[in-house]
Amino acid sequence: MKVPEIFLIESLHKPGSLAKILTVIGEGGLVIDNLSAVRRDGEKTVWEITLEIDDDVELSLIEKIDRLPNARVLGKSDRVFDRHSGGKIQTVSRLPIATLQELHDIYTPGVARVCLAIQKDPGLAWRYTNIGRTVAIVTNGTAILGLGDIGPFAGLPVMEGKAALLARLANLSGIPILIEEKEPKRLIESIAAIAPSFGAIQLEDIAAPACFEVEEALRARLDRPVLHDDQHGTAVVILATLTSAARRVGLDIRESVIGQIGLGAAGIGIARLLLAFGVRTVLGADISTQAMERLESMGGKRADLNGVMKKSDVVIATTGRKGLIVPEMVRKGQLIFALSNPDPEIEPETAIRQGAVFAADGKSINNVLGFPGLFRGALEARAKTFTDDMLFAASRAISETAPEGELLPSPLDPNVHEAVTKAVFRAAGGKI
Amino acid sequence: MKVPEIFLIESLHKPGSLAKILTVIGEGGLVIDNLSAVRRDGEKTVWEITLEIDDDVELSLIEKIDRLPNARVLGKSDRVFDRHSGGKIQTVSRLPIATLQELHDIYTPGVARVCLAIQKDPGLAWRYTNIGRTVAIVTNGTAILGLGDIGPFAGLPVMEGKAALLARLANLSGIPILIEEKEPKRLIESIAAIAPSFGAIQLEDIAAPACFEVEEALRARLDRPVLHDDQHGTAVVILATLTSAARRVGLDIRESVIGQIGLGAAGIGIARLLLAFGVRTVLGADISTQAMERLESMGGKRADLNGVMKKSDVVIATTGRKGLIVPEMVRKGQLIFALSNPDPEIEPETAIRQGAVFAADGKSINNVLGFPGLFRGALEARAKTFTDDMLFAASRAISETAPEGELLPSPLDPNVHEAVTKAVFRAAGGKI
Repeated sequence: MKVPEIFLIESLHKPGSLAKILTVIGEGGLVIDNLSAVRRDGEKTVWEITLEIDDDVELSLIEKIDRLPNARVLGKSDRVFDRHSGGKIQTVSRLPIATLQELHDIYTPGVARVCLAIQKDPGLAWRYTNIGRTVAIVTNGTAILGLGDIGPFAGLPVMEGKAALLARLANLSGIPILIEEKEPKRLIESIAAIAPSFGAIQLEDIAAPACFEVEEALRARLDRPVLHDDQHGTAVVILATLTSAARRVGLDIRESVIGQIGLGAAGIGIARLLLAFGVRTVLGADISTQAMERLESMGGKRADLNGVMKKSDVVIATTGRKGLIVPEMVRKGQLIFALSNPDPEIEPETAIRQGAVFAADGKSINNVLGFPGLFRGALEARAKTFTDDMLFAASRAISETAPEGELLPSPLDPNVHEAVTKAVFRAAGGKI
Repeated sequence: MKVPEIFLIESLHKPGSLAKILTVIGEGGLVIDNLSAVRRDGEKTVWEITLEIDDDVELSLIEKIDRLPNARVLGKSDRVFDRHSGGKIQTVSRLPIATLQELHDIYTPGVARVCLAIQKDPGLAWRYTNIGRTVAIVTNGTAILGLGDIGPFAGLPVMEGKAALLARLANLSGIPILIEEKEPKRLIESIAAIAPSFGAIQLEDIAAPACFEVEEALRARLDRPVLHDDQHGTAVVILATLTSAARRVGLDIRESVIGQIGLGAAGIGIARLLLAFGVRTVLGADISTQAMERLESMGGKRADLNGVMKKSDVVIATTGRKGLIVPEMVRKGQLIFALSNPDPEIEPETAIRQGAVFAADGKSINNVLGFPGLFRGALEARAKTFTDDMLFAASRAISETAPEGELLPSPLDPNVHEAVTKAVFRAAGGKI
């Protein structure tokens, strides 16, 4: 997998200097993800240029840039690592503890009264502790981003990232939980054992098919909301996009033929939500027979890549395989979601050129739009589980928050998380 | 168990009004824990008076106060509950997430680089995540404070209290983990399964004898520091007090006969640490044969209550039984620690009156002095376990931070936690 690298490149402050650097990068087949000036020293400017690049291409690129008359590669920026230094989250005390009275109220002996009150009425824990704002973010590290099975420990930065987002976007306390266990039954036992500690449980980056068994068992067993974000978070955002597209290009979601390429966690989650939403025809293709059987058991239909491309109004690809959809396969008027990160099954521009009415890649379908409000709404409503109605409500709220002319809002727009929270709260039967 | 209640009592602003109220309370056999004026309205003052009181005594006390000419009970204050409202801790993001660049650095795609770096070198997690500052605070709720087996859920306010103290006093992230499991082997498995998530593990309010097996197994199995605070935290503070007493009253700790009444988690922890410190004679009395055998296996000697009181230079009682030590048992020159909360085995004043050279109850031997610095020092040094040298170093640091004329410093003095952190760090072989 390509990972983004940030190059620090110095150029002479002359017309055309930057253009020449970008031309060399473009000729190397690399796309600029981001670019900004970090400082100017007299005649020279230092640029931070973010590229997704493989190690083996890197050296030759640096040589080519250094051969330019007005440019020089200074090195790579540690901005991402700098931001991670010391970790991304921490637990804080909501109260000052500066006097003995404060100490005796929040710890012994005062705390004993609160314990006894909760023993008599466990519901009071939602008032006198933080439990109603806590979300365990649990992974076994078997499917971390597109990196695969790198183990839970190496996945911790992703879990901390989710916790930081829950804190900033929904004022929730996310708690990373790393479990070295691939066998579903033992993983279920380990999660169930600590479940009383948290208001809700977010399963994260657990590979298919184990993720299905784990989530199903925990949902049946626990009286707290459990959500595997890779399945349902992405599905909620896809449904939001289709809802917006329905308004904009006159798509009838339920009557459309929706074709999926790739039936892993995300693919199955999307198929499940669309079928529950009332879509009549969901076709699915995957190299795993087990995955296709799973789709059929939910009411979808087995197909192959060509069949999906020929018959579908909407194509949703979640295969992790770059360029799997060749341009000739695209039919006029199709909506194409090529969601694999960092390299989509087909570039959106190519799909549009081939006649697609809409095309998007994984970067624009961001599940950060969904999970913060989904959890906050469920917790506020004291929901015991996530129902499909709660997921539909989240999709609708996301779609309705999209600015004029866009299918989705920005994940950093606080309005979207507030709207999702309220919609999920109401769908869960929450009373104000 | 008595729990502290805060009464709101209004009195006329006249000489003697408050004295009369306090006289009634004193005649009821109740001790004033705290008293403060909360407001003055013209001729009237409202007082907050904190008492430890049983429910059955409460009504008659209120009647007696209401019969006073210048006083009236307004009700009970919710100050403790108010302070608990919404919980005492929360997870926060250490970083702003306001721009897409920030989002892409701390979450996908940037975070992938940090994951890959940790996969190659797991030690980098201590630099690029918060794990090196995290402490799981794990309980099964079988011995919450003096309340007994009230279950882990009702114990959550205590765990949040510990986490708040870790945050305020040592800048650590405490994470309450509640496990509904009394069988030691299964409890061990559940804790071990999630251990990779945390830098260190604090076992909390787990009843004896399960606590011994659980701690021993986890210490052997995990490469992270594990500490059962009820055993070792209290022991560290007791040893600190004895160290101060050695200076002040010329006690030779190692040559003293130390007698313990009660050999539960705290009692056994104290005996173990004192024997490891080099105390030659530790006598112990307990109603459980198993507990006495445990003491003998560590090098202590079996005794009974009378034997302990007759032979010991230092008496340490941790029985939970109010008034167990009758005044006549006290010998001249003894040091008496009657640690049961809220009611000691003998009131310190009574012991002093009987000739004890020093006497203290559980309120003055506060384990908040120990655990924050113990964990911070161990984590900073990347220690794989707590050694006795680390515990001794903590005791010495606490004793050395005591103000002139006192045996212990205040738990709210930041110097003590800094001193303990440094001492434990050095004892763990930490390099700056």
